[in-house]
Amino acid sequence: MKNIKKKDLLEIKALTFDVFGTVVDWRGSIIREGEAFGAARGLDVDWAEFADKWRGGYGPSMNRVRQGELPWLNIDALHRMILDELLDGFKIAGLSEMEKDHLNRVWHRLLPWPEAVSGLQRLRERFIVAPLSNGNIALLTNMAKHAGLPWDCILSSELAKHYKPDPEVYQTAADLLGLPPSQVMMVAAHPGDLLASASVGFKTGFVPRPEEYGPHRNRDLEHDAAFDVVASDFNDLASQLGA
Amino acid sequence: MKNIKKKDLLEIKALTFDVFGTVVDWRGSIIREGEAFGAARGLDVDWAEFADKWRGGYGPSMNRVRQGELPWLNIDALHRMILDELLDGFKIAGLSEMEKDHLNRVWHRLLPWPEAVSGLQRLRERFIVAPLSNGNIALLTNMAKHAGLPWDCILSSELAKHYKPDPEVYQTAADLLGLPPSQVMMVAAHPGDLLASASVGFKTGFVPRPEEYGPHRNRDLEHDAAFDVVASDFNDLASQLGA
Repeated sequence: MKNIKKKDLLEIKALTFDVFGTVVDWRGSIIREGEAFGAARGLDVDWAEFADKWRGGYGPSMNRVRQGELPWLNIDALHRMILDELLDGFKIAGLSEMEKDHLNRVWHRLLPWPEAVSGLQRLRERFIVAPLSNGNIALLTNMAKHAGLPWDCILSSELAKHYKPDPEVYQTAADLLGLPPSQVMMVAAHPGDLLASASVGFKTGFVPRPEEYGPHRNRDLEHDAAFDVVASDFNDLASQLGA
Repeated sequence: MKNIKKKDLLEIKALTFDVFGTVVDWRGSIIREGEAFGAARGLDVDWAEFADKWRGGYGPSMNRVRQGELPWLNIDALHRMILDELLDGFKIAGLSEMEKDHLNRVWHRLLPWPEAVSGLQRLRERFIVAPLSNGNIALLTNMAKHAGLPWDCILSSELAKHYKPDPEVYQTAADLLGLPPSQVMMVAAHPGDLLASASVGFKTGFVPRPEEYGPHRNRDLEHDAAFDVVASDFNDLASQLGA
């Protein structure tokens, strides 16, 4: 912790976390489940490509809601729209509605990065810790139960009926926590999320996850100077914040 | 568990709990803190009367919001309005803004009934457990951290911008949990809360807390037949629900 920042950081009461990619390894989790799902059904699918395309459809589908082309839909509904297109594209036919729903809920069963739970446990001793994700409340609650994520409460873009990085999401979260934005730190692996939270007054903690999109991708370092804290993982974040 | 009910109860996925009086002993907690607060300042106050009047102001203040006389206010704000009147009425003068705010937040520090935490731990193994209280998210989150209440997520009337027993509160909670109301059981010490939840389709679990309003009050038994389960405490509830 740089001394010049220290006074500012001392006022932090709560940490809000991006989830997909920052807390959990969506890509690895979907590949792992997909491979088991496919093997049981004799499907020949490149599940890494499947995972990437599923995630890739997420931004465009949120934009369709933002632009009024679709009504408000939670992420379960958006994931399902994309999944139905992918099943066609990958020529996966004959799944029952129950199987499709189960596959769609793989996002409720994503697994955390190896140190995420122990880091959150440490941070929780000193701060309120909550997800602040585009994932809906049910998804985040089921994920926490499945993965053992020790959140103090579950916050979601669903509560603002806006998706990140719209500023309403961060402001609503601070309001629900009963805190001024300056007492909340957004923690994310994604600079855009952090910069949007900072525009509302949040502190920012950058935790790059260089393997989010698979091996052999380079970590984006250019934004480091813009953030209050840059940490290598959640335990490093805890150490830097005195937790 | 009566056999005739068993099939219905097996579909339950989540339990939502009333908090003030059902999970925590608001009256005993306020008396305890009030006495310490008063002793440190040489105040001569009947804190049992103070607690009862504070709680007594709560229904009428919610009605002022329902009737449009006041804008939407969370419970911290309603508690504070009532507190300011009580301080006048009890002739408690000279408190700083910080002291008043600390006193108002006694509602964030209420202590659970003796078996509440162990009962919730058992129930949590089988069900999603969440408060569904008129307390705001910040209040319930701080209370959970202070008292060690092991919620899976925090639900509040604040998320519906309606107070219980308005039906919007229960419907919003079921929607956020991603469950049909029939898969959710409301647990409360107050028949009115349970009957309102049942009107939306919730299952109901009645856990009377005969000491909520102090000793020497009789338990209200007349409504027992209206509920899916009647339990003597949260551990009994867990046993009856197979958790």
